Amino acid sequence: IVNLSSCFLQGILERLDAGEIVIGDGGFVFALEKRGYVKAGPWTPEAAVEHPEAVRQLHREFLRAGSNVLQTFTFYASEDKLENRGNYVAEKISCQKVNEAACDIAREVANEGDALVAGGVSQTPSYLSCKDKTEVKAVFRKQLEVFMKKNVDFLIAEYFEHVEEAVWAVEVLKESGKPVAATMCIGPEGDMHGVPPGQCAVQLVKAGASIVGVNCHFDPEISLETVKLMKEGLQAAKLKAHLMSQPLAFHTPDCGKQGFIDLPEFPFGLEPRIVTRWDIQKYARKAYDLGIRFIGGCCGFEPYHIRAIAEELAPERGFLPEASEKHGSWGDNLSMHTKPWVRARARKEYWENLKPASGRPYCPSMSKPDGWGVTKGARELMQQKEATTEQQLKELFQKQKI
Amino acid sequence: IVNLSSCFLQGILERLDAGEIVIGDGGFVFALEKRGYVKAGPWTPEAAVEHPEAVRQLHREFLRAGSNVLQTFTFYASEDKLENRGNYVAEKISCQKVNEAACDIAREVANEGDALVAGGVSQTPSYLSCKDKTEVKAVFRKQLEVFMKKNVDFLIAEYFEHVEEAVWAVEVLKESGKPVAATMCIGPEGDMHGVPPGQCAVQLVKAGASIVGVNCHFDPEISLETVKLMKEGLQAAKLKAHLMSQPLAFHTPDCGKQGFIDLPEFPFGLEPRIVTRWDIQKYARKAYDLGIRFIGGCCGFEPYHIRAIAEELAPERGFLPEASEKHGSWGDNLSMHTKPWVRARARKEYWENLKPASGRPYCPSMSKPDGWGVTKGARELMQQKEATTEQQLKELFQKQKI
Amino acid sequence: IVNLSSCFLQGILERLDAGEIVIGDGGFVFALEKRGYVKAGPWTPEAAVEHPEAVRQLHREFLRAGSNVLQTFTFYASEDKLENRGNYVAEKISCQKVNEAACDIAREVANEGDALVAGGVSQTPSYLSCKDKTEVKAVFRKQLEVFMKKNVDFLIAEYFEHVEEAVWAVEVLKESGKPVAATMCIGPEGDMHGVPPGQCAVQLVKAGASIVGVNCHFDPEISLETVKLMKEGLQAAKLKAHLMSQPLAFHTPDCGKQGFIDLPEFPFGLEPRIVTRWDIQKYARKAYDLGIRFIGGCCGFEPYHIRAIAEELAPERGFLPEASEKHGSWGDNLSMHTKPWVRARARKEYWENLKPASGRPYCPSMSKPDGWGVTKGARELMQQKEATTEQQLKELFQKQKI
Amino acid sequence: IVNLSSCFLQGILERLDAGEIVIGDGGFVFALEKRGYVKAGPWTPEAAVEHPEAVRQLHREFLRAGSNVLQTFTFYASEDKLENRGNYVAEKISCQKVNEAACDIAREVANEGDALVAGGVSQTPSYLSCKDKTEVKAVFRKQLEVFMKKNVDFLIAEYFEHVEEAVWAVEVLKESGKPVAATMCIGPEGDMHGVPPGQCAVQLVKAGASIVGVNCHFDPEISLETVKLMKEGLQAAKLKAHLMSQPLAFHTPDCGKQGFIDLPEFPFGLEPRIVTRWDIQKYARKAYDLGIRFIGGCCGFEPYHIRAIAEELAPERGFLPEASEKHGSWGDNLSMHTKPWVRARARKEYWENLKPASGRPYCPSMSKPDGWGVTKGARELMQQKEATTEQQLKELFQKQKI
Repeated sequence: IVNLSSCFLQGILERLDAGEIVIGDGGFVFALEKRGYVKAGPWTPEAAVEHPEAVRQLHREFLRAGSNVLQTFTFYASEDKLENRGNYVAEKISCQKVNEAACDIAREVANEGDALVAGGVSQTPSYLSCKDKTEVKAVFRKQLEVFMKKNVDFLIAEYFEHVEEAVWAVEVLKESGKPVAATMCIGPEGDMHGVPPGQCAVQLVKAGASIVGVNCHFDPEISLETVKLMKEGLQAAKLKAHLMSQPLAFHTPDCGKQGFIDLPEFPFGLEPRIVTRWDIQKYARKAYDLGIRFIGGCCGFEPYHIRAIAEELAPERGFLPEASEKHGSWGDNLSMHTKPWVRARARKEYWENLKPASGRPYCPSMSKPDGWGVTKGARELMQQKEATTEQQLKELFQKQKI
Repeated sequence: IVNLSSCFLQGILERLDAGEIVIGDGGFVFALEKRGYVKAGPWTPEAAVEHPEAVRQLHREFLRAGSNVLQTFTFYASEDKLENRGNYVAEKISCQKVNEAACDIAREVANEGDALVAGGVSQTPSYLSCKDKTEVKAVFRKQLEVFMKKNVDFLIAEYFEHVEEAVWAVEVLKESGKPVAATMCIGPEGDMHGVPPGQCAVQLVKAGASIVGVNCHFDPEISLETVKLMKEGLQAAKLKAHLMSQPLAFHTPDCGKQGFIDLPEFPFGLEPRIVTRWDIQKYARKAYDLGIRFIGGCCGFEPYHIRAIAEELAPERGFLPEASEKHGSWGDNLSMHTKPWVRARARKEYWENLKPASGRPYCPSMSKPDGWGVTKGARELMQQKEATTEQQLKELFQKQKI
Repeated sequence: IVNLSSCFLQGILERLDAGEIVIGDGGFVFALEKRGYVKAGPWTPEAAVEHPEAVRQLHREFLRAGSNVLQTFTFYASEDKLENRGNYVAEKISCQKVNEAACDIAREVANEGDALVAGGVSQTPSYLSCKDKTEVKAVFRKQLEVFMKKNVDFLIAEYFEHVEEAVWAVEVLKESGKPVAATMCIGPEGDMHGVPPGQCAVQLVKAGASIVGVNCHFDPEISLETVKLMKEGLQAAKLKAHLMSQPLAFHTPDCGKQGFIDLPEFPFGLEPRIVTRWDIQKYARKAYDLGIRFIGGCCGFEPYHIRAIAEELAPERGFLPEASEKHGSWGDNLSMHTKPWVRARARKEYWENLKPASGRPYCPSMSKPDGWGVTKGARELMQQKEATTEQQLKELFQKQKI
Repeated sequence: IVNLSSCFLQGILERLDAGEIVIGDGGFVFALEKRGYVKAGPWTPEAAVEHPEAVRQLHREFLRAGSNVLQTFTFYASEDKLENRGNYVAEKISCQKVNEAACDIAREVANEGDALVAGGVSQTPSYLSCKDKTEVKAVFRKQLEVFMKKNVDFLIAEYFEHVEEAVWAVEVLKESGKPVAATMCIGPEGDMHGVPPGQCAVQLVKAGASIVGVNCHFDPEISLETVKLMKEGLQAAKLKAHLMSQPLAFHTPDCGKQGFIDLPEFPFGLEPRIVTRWDIQKYARKAYDLGIRFIGGCCGFEPYHIRAIAEELAPERGFLPEASEKHGSWGDNLSMHTKPWVRARARKEYWENLKPASGRPYCPSMSKPDGWGVTKGARELMQQKEATTEQQLKELFQKQKI
């Protein structure tokens, strides 16, 4: 496979430096779980080897929808993760094989259009189990070797909950000489150790990232709030970097610090939270207005969500994506419907203001996230105290009745 | 392409007669709209010619999820419909070409597994614009010619709002000598002319359908209610037929007689209504208990919904679909999660009882369907009357204040 | 106390026969429970003796709001009920004393305005514990003696779940020679023995009731549906009677056959279901259009709800109630507010179309009623069957993994 | 009328200094509006003169429910306000007369139990229309003269949106030598000029208030957050004062800086937001745990809400209020119900965890507050920009189709 992009196309930094809007792709593990190729729980990408046609088709759909960057399907494809989840994978498939296959597929599809290939690494079990810096870096380096061999266009370190690990990843990726983007799966409260978004951004840029932002774990609105804090942190530190956002396509106004994982609906009851194309158009506009130029999505993003970004920003970019040949602007393809009330939906104002019903009258609109809100000791203390006051109250009511 | 099924596989009626559960596939136009290949509004299937790889991949996903029947992607592929919507199709593609391509793709994928190919016809603009029986039948016959040439395994007349047209379709399809299934997109209130479901079923069976039921327009629960009425109608008429259901994968407790088309969310704001895999397991069980043996889905059904049917009924069938290698039973793949509260979700009771939140606190749970609930004359009368009483009331209040 | 109404006022039947609209009062036990004088559970009216000032004040508020009928506060004041709940009543108060006090208070307030006093009886523990007709009638007769001694203007048999008991009550009340109204606490499904509303109405009229309808247990909309069925039943039987409705002031679209008792929120969590004054205006109009002329309320109805009936029907009646001096038509008293967006609420269209939010994002909009939906035997069978299929499914998944 | 409290009872500060819990009363204008004696909009208290029996009865209900403080019904009873709204009051009633009548009624009822009378002043039109300090103070002084003549036990300056005006009120009230409490109707964002709650509290205490806190405008939860900020402000300033909270009995998680006035449901559609008695028990416990010892309510609080405070804190206080003779602890009066599923509700755990449904499936759970979120200029700019991009987009789509 020839790498066309290195010959004819501009690289990621050239594009961003020139003020172009770069559109990312959507969430592979969630989309392929629904299609039957990824297992929820492990979320590992062995489908690149097992069912390349399914991965290729999804890449194609994103490309057609407007993606300028195709990320290799290497999420959780580090050796320690794949081994960890080995029992889930039907036949043992080597880490290297998965990463190589993912690179080949991404390049093949990228060559069909105007897209760059980005090799991606993500958080590792090694870090979570407290392995040291050298060991964790070795894990990233193993994936990087494949990316270099396959000559990806640039690199993304994504889905990090701890800025420390993200910094190590960036340091490894920088060894390649290729541009590095880094996104964390955090919200406005910052990383799991309490480092605020602004400081996370500063550390990532200092470690060598040219593009920083967030991905996954929170909905578009919350994610943009977080990127805003990153932007302010960088400004305060007088650092320059491009901004990037790849949020969930699920509404999560009710989630806690650790995002959608703690919601009771994760991962098999998230359907009522899926955002509409119109929600995404608002997101794209807001992201653009905030100065973000690398705009994409993560879990829940399907091709039509990516198309919505491309359509919203078509006036700025001057062109529509290929898949818009099968879409009207703001529902205008309904204008020929036989029913007048359906025709009445063929306008922006209608879809922009619609408050879509869930069809689930027995369900609430928000959930309390699970988790250890209260330590065990505190909970016992509370229960004890309550028991005492309950007993006292009961006695008072009984006394009254005599 | 060789038709393996005719050599090795049992036909649809042999299977159903033997008491087998036959699993249908999901909704192509909605799934491919999200993937970027079908335009909402016209909903025509020219993608079979334009992007066969996308159609093929979706067929494969359904097959892998457990579908025993692959319907040719010929929804709205009648000549009158395609011409009607011609301006939407980039380059003019003939009706015949679309139907042929759809047959070839379905057969190719069916041969990869244990599936039958069903050629499908659906309601026509000709009928709606009051063309006569001969003209409407000619439209169906044109599609049937392709199905015969391509030797599909059986035929489905689906998505009919008027039993009269459905009967004409069945009569044409019966000319082929192949088994015919017929489903209407109606709810418990019956067809658009007020024919109740029980009578619709009777007419369809008398016209030659061996399998009858409903598809599209209503959610699983309402659809099963309708099939129940059909079953009762057949019993009362002492007629025998197999039952079939292919409902929406959207919750629609609030829709009116004409189903989800009239809901304000149709077609671009239906996301919060998407059913979960657990909703589908309940549907599959209920359908089975009702005696339905051809169980599938329509708009909104993605491969994982079809898999949910196959998993729910695996004890009865004795096997799981291929795609279950990437799925656990009732979330049991969460049992190894690092967080105890996520591990606690690895059980049937949890998912069965979850009331998933929408994450949309500003949205209601039900919508009033659009439509002409009140005729124009009646509305004017009401407004006039109201104006009068309002004026009188105002005067009373003013008098009081003096 | 002198009974003014018998001298100067028209009786209930004269009013209704003349086509007048008669406005009832609201729900005493619920209103006085919130005010601290009635105990939820027993719901007995000993406050008439213990705290006459509280009962008097509530009567006054309803009178002022527009009530033309003041019902004696004798709900559940039959001897068997009061004894049954004796342990709840601080000092033993005789049944006779409660009924007498209630009559005196009602008459005292009725004399302050243009209102009639109606003595009321309701369902008895005697009937529920299968006492025979003679015994049950004796219970009603005991209350009737007081009503005759105190010379009430007419009688109401209300809150009956079984038409058989209601008929017995009407028969006893008719012995007095006074007009009798009879309302059942049933919905469209009919009484607890399955007698449909139409038949209930016929039996009540045949037993001597001049006015029939429903009270309590269901919301205004469902109650009107039920009265409509009663009206149709009477028409079919060629019987004539005035119609009456006194529904809940709680929204109960989700309740089962036995009404709001079975809702999980009963009786201490019903707040989010309380109807607005605008809901009541719609109810009053709809009741009027249906031909109902005795229009009041039951549990949940506060004075402002009764005023809403009187205001809605003021154009027909030609006057406003006294309490309207402290109310504007459709919020027009907001027209002088300093904030323009509050001023914008001073119009009918605003309040009529408002979809009021609950402020409870973690709560659903509907509940499943409690109750024995499934018999114990059936439930065990289901659990057993499920256990079997679960075990089978588990084995299938395990086999697949080997 | 003799002032018993000055002879036998402890004053407000003696009680609070001794660590006693003092329970306030509920919201008069809202309760009396529902009863037909107060007009929404003006919200003035002329009922004290017009219908003393109605005001007296409400005081009695609160006393019986556990209130230790009866506030004179003098809300908005300043001369400027009454004149301002003069056209709403049937016959002109002088400011002095209203204030005197209110004092007499409160004292009469207070003498029936263990309660103190508090004279209350609230924000004035004079301040809002930019009258100077002297003029505004004169308005307060006029009411104070009545309070001194009638010898109330202490004074409350409440419902101030601007700390400046509240300070002026406190300064005037302090002239009396009586203890002064001061509450503002603000949320965590502070007063209308942006003064944060902590600073408001400091200014009020410095002006002479012995008790500070919040009332009205926000729900219990938000109000406690605000008092917490006040507490922290006082601690930081090393000032001592007792804390007080009298929130709404409406859920308002969705309101903006100016509280419930801006919610679209204000004031005639707030029903679904009404809190339950169990919500109030949670509030009382949380207030107590926060160190608040003057715990009451404002708009929406009915007698049963006040009783819920007294019941929740009965173990700490050692006694129940009189009205608890008509109430069980946590629904235990349901334990004798005939239906087992209703008996199952006779326990704390049930009511504490109930998520009550609204019975309104077409309504959302939260509203966007009205108001000027965007200045007019900004809005026009946005619209202009949008029009441009829409035009461009339309052209792009058209170009594509050619």
